[in-house]
Amino acid sequence: MQSYRFSRFGSLDHLNRRDEAMPAPGRGEVLLRVHASSLNYRDLALLHGRYPMSWTDGLIPLSDGAGEIIALGEGCRRFAVGDRVCNSFFPEWFGGPFPLEQAARQYGSNLDGWLCQYKTVSEEALVRVPDHLSYAEAAALPCAALTAWTALNGPNPIRAGDTVLTQGTGGVSLFAVQLAKLMGARVIATTSSAEKAEKLEALGADAVIDYRAEPQWGTRARELSGGMGVDRIVEVGGQGTLAQSLDAVAVGGEIAVIGFLDQGGAALDFMRYFLSGATLRRIAVGHREDMEAMLRAIGRHGLRPVIDRAFPFGDARAAFEHLEARRHFGKVVIQHG
Amino acid sequence: MQSYRFSRFGSLDHLNRRDEAMPAPGRGEVLLRVHASSLNYRDLALLHGRYPMSWTDGLIPLSDGAGEIIALGEGCRRFAVGDRVCNSFFPEWFGGPFPLEQAARQYGSNLDGWLCQYKTVSEEALVRVPDHLSYAEAAALPCAALTAWTALNGPNPIRAGDTVLTQGTGGVSLFAVQLAKLMGARVIATTSSAEKAEKLEALGADAVIDYRAEPQWGTRARELSGGMGVDRIVEVGGQGTLAQSLDAVAVGGEIAVIGFLDQGGAALDFMRYFLSGATLRRIAVGHREDMEAMLRAIGRHGLRPVIDRAFPFGDARAAFEHLEARRHFGKVVIQHG
Amino acid sequence: MQSYRFSRFGSLDHLNRRDEAMPAPGRGEVLLRVHASSLNYRDLALLHGRYPMSWTDGLIPLSDGAGEIIALGEGCRRFAVGDRVCNSFFPEWFGGPFPLEQAARQYGSNLDGWLCQYKTVSEEALVRVPDHLSYAEAAALPCAALTAWTALNGPNPIRAGDTVLTQGTGGVSLFAVQLAKLMGARVIATTSSAEKAEKLEALGADAVIDYRAEPQWGTRARELSGGMGVDRIVEVGGQGTLAQSLDAVAVGGEIAVIGFLDQGGAALDFMRYFLSGATLRRIAVGHREDMEAMLRAIGRHGLRPVIDRAFPFGDARAAFEHLEARRHFGKVVIQHG
Amino acid sequence: MQSYRFSRFGSLDHLNRRDEAMPAPGRGEVLLRVHASSLNYRDLALLHGRYPMSWTDGLIPLSDGAGEIIALGEGCRRFAVGDRVCNSFFPEWFGGPFPLEQAARQYGSNLDGWLCQYKTVSEEALVRVPDHLSYAEAAALPCAALTAWTALNGPNPIRAGDTVLTQGTGGVSLFAVQLAKLMGARVIATTSSAEKAEKLEALGADAVIDYRAEPQWGTRARELSGGMGVDRIVEVGGQGTLAQSLDAVAVGGEIAVIGFLDQGGAALDFMRYFLSGATLRRIAVGHREDMEAMLRAIGRHGLRPVIDRAFPFGDARAAFEHLEARRHFGKVVIQHG
Repeated sequence: MQSYRFSRFGSLDHLNRRDEAMPAPGRGEVLLRVHASSLNYRDLALLHGRYPMSWTDGLIPLSDGAGEIIALGEGCRRFAVGDRVCNSFFPEWFGGPFPLEQAARQYGSNLDGWLCQYKTVSEEALVRVPDHLSYAEAAALPCAALTAWTALNGPNPIRAGDTVLTQGTGGVSLFAVQLAKLMGARVIATTSSAEKAEKLEALGADAVIDYRAEPQWGTRARELSGGMGVDRIVEVGGQGTLAQSLDAVAVGGEIAVIGFLDQGGAALDFMRYFLSGATLRRIAVGHREDMEAMLRAIGRHGLRPVIDRAFPFGDARAAFEHLEARRHFGKVVIQHG
Repeated sequence: MQSYRFSRFGSLDHLNRRDEAMPAPGRGEVLLRVHASSLNYRDLALLHGRYPMSWTDGLIPLSDGAGEIIALGEGCRRFAVGDRVCNSFFPEWFGGPFPLEQAARQYGSNLDGWLCQYKTVSEEALVRVPDHLSYAEAAALPCAALTAWTALNGPNPIRAGDTVLTQGTGGVSLFAVQLAKLMGARVIATTSSAEKAEKLEALGADAVIDYRAEPQWGTRARELSGGMGVDRIVEVGGQGTLAQSLDAVAVGGEIAVIGFLDQGGAALDFMRYFLSGATLRRIAVGHREDMEAMLRAIGRHGLRPVIDRAFPFGDARAAFEHLEARRHFGKVVIQHG
Repeated sequence: MQSYRFSRFGSLDHLNRRDEAMPAPGRGEVLLRVHASSLNYRDLALLHGRYPMSWTDGLIPLSDGAGEIIALGEGCRRFAVGDRVCNSFFPEWFGGPFPLEQAARQYGSNLDGWLCQYKTVSEEALVRVPDHLSYAEAAALPCAALTAWTALNGPNPIRAGDTVLTQGTGGVSLFAVQLAKLMGARVIATTSSAEKAEKLEALGADAVIDYRAEPQWGTRARELSGGMGVDRIVEVGGQGTLAQSLDAVAVGGEIAVIGFLDQGGAALDFMRYFLSGATLRRIAVGHREDMEAMLRAIGRHGLRPVIDRAFPFGDARAAFEHLEARRHFGKVVIQHG
Repeated sequence: MQSYRFSRFGSLDHLNRRDEAMPAPGRGEVLLRVHASSLNYRDLALLHGRYPMSWTDGLIPLSDGAGEIIALGEGCRRFAVGDRVCNSFFPEWFGGPFPLEQAARQYGSNLDGWLCQYKTVSEEALVRVPDHLSYAEAAALPCAALTAWTALNGPNPIRAGDTVLTQGTGGVSLFAVQLAKLMGARVIATTSSAEKAEKLEALGADAVIDYRAEPQWGTRARELSGGMGVDRIVEVGGQGTLAQSLDAVAVGGEIAVIGFLDQGGAALDFMRYFLSGATLRRIAVGHREDMEAMLRAIGRHGLRPVIDRAFPFGDARAAFEHLEARRHFGKVVIQHG
């Protein structure tokens, strides 16, 4: 079977395709034929040495994959051969508060990831895929959709009628638009082009702000919320966007802090946070129980992920380059054939 | 100005229309022209001596009303003359856990209610009505819609993708169908006629069970939920329906206990509850903070209450008789002209 | 190594001690020397065919054990040889809502239990024991202490200053007294003898009611709570006690339904529940995340379980008989030597 | 009757004592004889123009008071003449999320405060004082104790066994030590003198860090928590302490942001927050429902506020100066005689 590995991070030149021995499932493990995988911003952060957590060289990259179970190890009970599954982002976070040691148990950075044709994993690390989704669509979910779900639900779920603000058109942000609409929220999205604005509205956004045309988009979002501020912000930008988010957020609202895509901007003045009256909550993707709840909602609503582009297994490097160009609208996936 | 009062409960013959002095707003109070009111099952329970809480004779009936502010008492800050408002069910429950003493502070049973042309109340007891609603529609909300909202939200809100079961076609149940859909839930409704079943589906119900044709509707609802059981039951029936609800509910699901419309059936066997694995939570309508959150959701979604029939102020007795016949689909309201 | 097995339930005559092959840990498993185990009411319910869930004949009994890790299977990361551990009640419930399939994955009823000298289990099924506890004390925790913790915490934790009611002097009830005190609650306990009442007070109970002397102990508990009712009831009795609990509980209070020790009494009249204004929540012991949180609290406070009596491994039958006599104050444990 | 008013803020020279007409209670209001009041850091912030919210000149200062009801206005139901009461910090926040308009309804900054001998207020703005407290002790509670209670409880209450960090020896911090202990937490406190450290330990602190001797006290607190970090930080310092707090806090822990006592330090680097994995929640004192829950806990435990020093009514200026010197350990109160 074939896989890709980064001999070391730093350049796509170190991403090598190779033949590996077919793995055999141990006790409690299943053997998967991996049909699709997907990329996330964290894969670029790892590539460029900007990932703020521990990592190991030589691993198979990518945190997300979907496939078919083709063999069961001894003692498996959750699945049968033929079942269609994808992974839960953290293989061993099943519910409850984040178990700190799991921070060092992530695919692609600490464990072999999903850019391979076959893979053995514990059956506890997998969840069933809704029938209406293709493998490519299912592979789009583990990191980005669960992050969006957790940002909107979590310990303090949004309520129908709340206003949610999303930033840009990456995977997390588009899932946040879709899931927030399904939960009865009003969505304000930011983007930088009229073309993307149209697509965001087609996806369900109630209002779109061009953050290039309106650099004070936080104030604009507050106006669009009726003056009281936005109840939940799905914050993927980080330092470069947080000041605007603090202008946009309602007293008692919550900024779900997810990413650090935008590293511009100044350090955060404490009083600006203090006066916002908001909660900042750091989102660490999510656990299996929420993944299953989300898949149930996705299944019942027939929600389909937005796939920007699918690359064949042989063009994995091109998939990385495409994500890096940051012109995508939705998820970049790889079809393993 | 004119009002109705029950000289005593027991018969509609004791419901008398009379002239009263125009009230004047005290400090912190407003004077309302009441444009519409609505009836609930509790008004029949009071009439027939089945209401399980304390009451006083001689009061103006009805817990729900909507109108226009026509004068402000000293020190009012929340509203202006001309504002369109309706009441929050409990005039002094603003948020947090139910304050026990408020059980004895209900319109129609302990305080003068809304079946009158003018009324003074504390401005704290009122909430603003969304623009798209008529007064008749707004008057439909205080008891029934807030009860449905609390049953679905409350301390343990349903999540998108959950399955909700509603019983029949009274006000609370239809609001539960509408609000549950808006929150991304799947709805199973019960009713007893094909005609009402069609209307429930038009309102958004995903599945309807004819409880006459299927007396074991709890088992049927469990099947329709995919076998795991229903996540939330909006229980308006009480003893006569609870056994079926326990068959329908998921382990970890919640039965929101609201009413006692159906007083048939046997006492509850403890082990039947024990084995259900469910939570029973008693819903006491709700507080002003939830009323305002609900109105925001109703406003943003343009949700319209289902009005079964509107009676003129002069036909209040006929409105009671119509509700009593229990053939309604939605709310029975009175237009005060 | 030696173990006990019930060839079939129904009589202690079917509880046989035997020699078994020493087990070897598989991948992800550890080998434990089991130093102690403990009995719970469920073991008697199984014995007498009153257990309301599925079971299998021929298993090693007892749901609770503690011991020392003496060997690690391949891939173990959570523990080292020499670590002192006990089990989490459900071997595969790690957090979040109860996973229904785990109901059929319980030690002693569906899986081999802990009345044996050596045992292999997944390392995920174990938790570390606080230093100050003996093995016998640690073996007292998995079922009873976690149930009490979940009853007091759960999705709706009690607050400092709340009043908690406990019933009797079994394991769950005594842990509830201890844990509730540690959380800042006021505790009212029921019992049937002056001697036990003294011990309950020594353990921290603020008030004790003799339920034989005061059959209307619910009303008495309400008085002792200052008239507003008890905020949380740790309900181990079931049908025979629930009516009194409904008299005792506060509007908005919660009855944590745990057991069915007392099968007398009448079926539950719906209106009696309705008027209580309380929540009934079924407690299913608890998950590993809560077990770990509880052990942390137990460790920090140096809390010690109340051991009624410890039997040697050879006298397991006597331990069952002692529990059955229902004169215990606290836990009945077995020391495996 | 006599009162103090700030003709304008900026200097204690503008704090004038004067005679005023005796107020008469309106509908729903009570007349209080104010026996004691207390000072908070916000009173200094107002004095020096550092208060970050709106204010009005000419008001009676101080947000906290306690007294005896000596007359009832028409329609009062909550209290009787002779009742001992103190205020809830926000006169009209009864429960649920913070109502934004209440930010501009604070005593001392927007409404006449408590540094006066008699006062009329809505009965809804008051709560009953536990019997064991003096008026001076009761006057210590409204701002500081409720803030500490909300910081520890709030939407995400600490659990028994959690570790809580407090900063310094002001009113909020000492209440946080006392309340956290009562909830079963472990407390780490910071201070700058051996004398205060001893007093903190006497009050219940499990560990005290001298932040002058250990400027990296965040790292030290993490060590003292066993390496996992502190679960809850009662953050009164703001920008000058937040960086250390981020070092101290556990992944998934919460920093309850209360004050801005320490305006040194650098702006917050986003990645430092991001990597902490913590939640920042802004605490806005709290609502009446929590005030009542806290008073119930205080009453049941006989908890006594730490009074640093009580000044007579005539020495109000000296009380301000004493607080300003920042050598206090606990609350500075004024006894109105």
